[in-house]
Amino acid sequence: MGNPKVRGVAASDVVDAVTFRPGDLLADRSTGDPATAPGDRAETEAATAGIVAELAGLQEQLYAEGVGGGQRSLLLLLQGMDTSGKDGTVRRVVGAMNPAGVRITSFKKPTPEELNHDFLWRIDKQLPSPGEVAVFNRSQYEDVLVVRVHDLVPETEWSGRYDKINEFERRVVDAGTHLIKMMLHISKDEQKERLGERLADPTKHWKYNAGDLTERAFWEDYQAAYQDALTKCSTDSAPWYVVPGDRKWYRDWVVANLLVHALREMSPRYPPADFDVAEQKRLLAAAD
Amino acid sequence: MGNPKVRGVAASDVVDAVTFRPGDLLADRSTGDPATAPGDRAETEAATAGIVAELAGLQEQLYAEGVGGGQRSLLLLLQGMDTSGKDGTVRRVVGAMNPAGVRITSFKKPTPEELNHDFLWRIDKQLPSPGEVAVFNRSQYEDVLVVRVHDLVPETEWSGRYDKINEFERRVVDAGTHLIKMMLHISKDEQKERLGERLADPTKHWKYNAGDLTERAFWEDYQAAYQDALTKCSTDSAPWYVVPGDRKWYRDWVVANLLVHALREMSPRYPPADFDVAEQKRLLAAAD
Repeated sequence: MGNPKVRGVAASDVVDAVTFRPGDLLADRSTGDPATAPGDRAETEAATAGIVAELAGLQEQLYAEGVGGGQRSLLLLLQGMDTSGKDGTVRRVVGAMNPAGVRITSFKKPTPEELNHDFLWRIDKQLPSPGEVAVFNRSQYEDVLVVRVHDLVPETEWSGRYDKINEFERRVVDAGTHLIKMMLHISKDEQKERLGERLADPTKHWKYNAGDLTERAFWEDYQAAYQDALTKCSTDSAPWYVVPGDRKWYRDWVVANLLVHALREMSPRYPPADFDVAEQKRLLAAAD
Repeated sequence: MGNPKVRGVAASDVVDAVTFRPGDLLADRSTGDPATAPGDRAETEAATAGIVAELAGLQEQLYAEGVGGGQRSLLLLLQGMDTSGKDGTVRRVVGAMNPAGVRITSFKKPTPEELNHDFLWRIDKQLPSPGEVAVFNRSQYEDVLVVRVHDLVPETEWSGRYDKINEFERRVVDAGTHLIKMMLHISKDEQKERLGERLADPTKHWKYNAGDLTERAFWEDYQAAYQDALTKCSTDSAPWYVVPGDRKWYRDWVVANLLVHALREMSPRYPPADFDVAEQKRLLAAAD
């Protein structure tokens, strides 16, 4: 299934380099170093294009498997500070897949109806169907990030959510969903530059909120909240990956490798015919 | 907004050529003649690629408009006999759009829960949100097509559905959704060839159903049912288009033109800033 190594870089090496393990410190993680890139920017972009093409093929097989009665699916969960590239990742990496088998959900500020339920209620409803690739742009983790940073619920409540998330994710994985959780990790300087670009370009004003600067002032609180979430919720069956986000071309390379590694491991298969092929050929030949 | 004419072919000419009007006969419509193509296959594919790129840009603006509070959306409804290219159209034309703003729904055989509701219940739930492009792969029209051909409900019931569909669609359009209804029109010979290709290729067996040949035997009944549906439900606000489907490259050209014509007419706009740009620039410059 495709070329497992691009210029000496195995996808498993990329996965290894960005896995967040118990005891790891987010503060130690580089936001910019293209440590596993197979070459310079142009070479890396070319290599990413090859992997993205392989991704599209694997996704079609996963989709076909689902049509044939398979129960497996893939869920990509994206978190990160404002401007960290969640939307760009969706467009540039997930965009190559057949849209019929892909479902993107952007979790915004909860509605009054959502707030009337447990925090996992709205998440549960968007889980992928068999054969699907689902993408969460923000997720259940907002309930231990923004909620914690701004004391939206008492600590006694949010502190219990890590265990609830772990239990929830275990159930999701046990049901046949391969779960990939990525934090797109950018530096505070890079965010300043990206916010400045949005302000400078009227066609990007819709991506900017006056609240973005308010949130930026809580940068250190968010980093601490991420540190805790990653430490408490990076499990064997649903590990967290910290993707260096300052260089978009390197971010796309890492994301593409994480996805292709997962899909190669799942090794989806076109389902066998559930009909008698020879008989159908005869019937078709005899038909009008 | 882009080049309105490709080698002398205006999108409005393509729209004109495939619009189904009261009094038209489906049997008179060509399934293969590339009447509005701007050149041969290679030239047409190149022209389609240009239009598809414009589509992606217009869709981003529609999405941005929705983020900015706009209420408009686009709904592409696809119907056609088995193998007519509904899935291929989604992949090849809709696939270029940003998946974050696109939602595809494939309507299959209704579930018991869906059958316990009015036939429009499951359709209503999948209408696009503001700014979204939604695609229906099959639709409410199945309830006057397969349901009629196989007498799944009495004629007294299905015969009342055309008016219900028209009322429903008027409400959808009035709420700000631009509705484009396409029948992908293939010949019976072309279907035979495509079914044969699916049978010949094990990686395509999942797309084949033993029931496909059974349905094929009802070809003329389906054409009659389509004739009625198109005649009764091609309205000024929600016209039907009959897209020649035998040549995939020409089908894609027509579909891309229908979509780009609609989006150019909608003329979506990036929303103006809902904040004081100069003030935010000052605040950002002063921030850490």
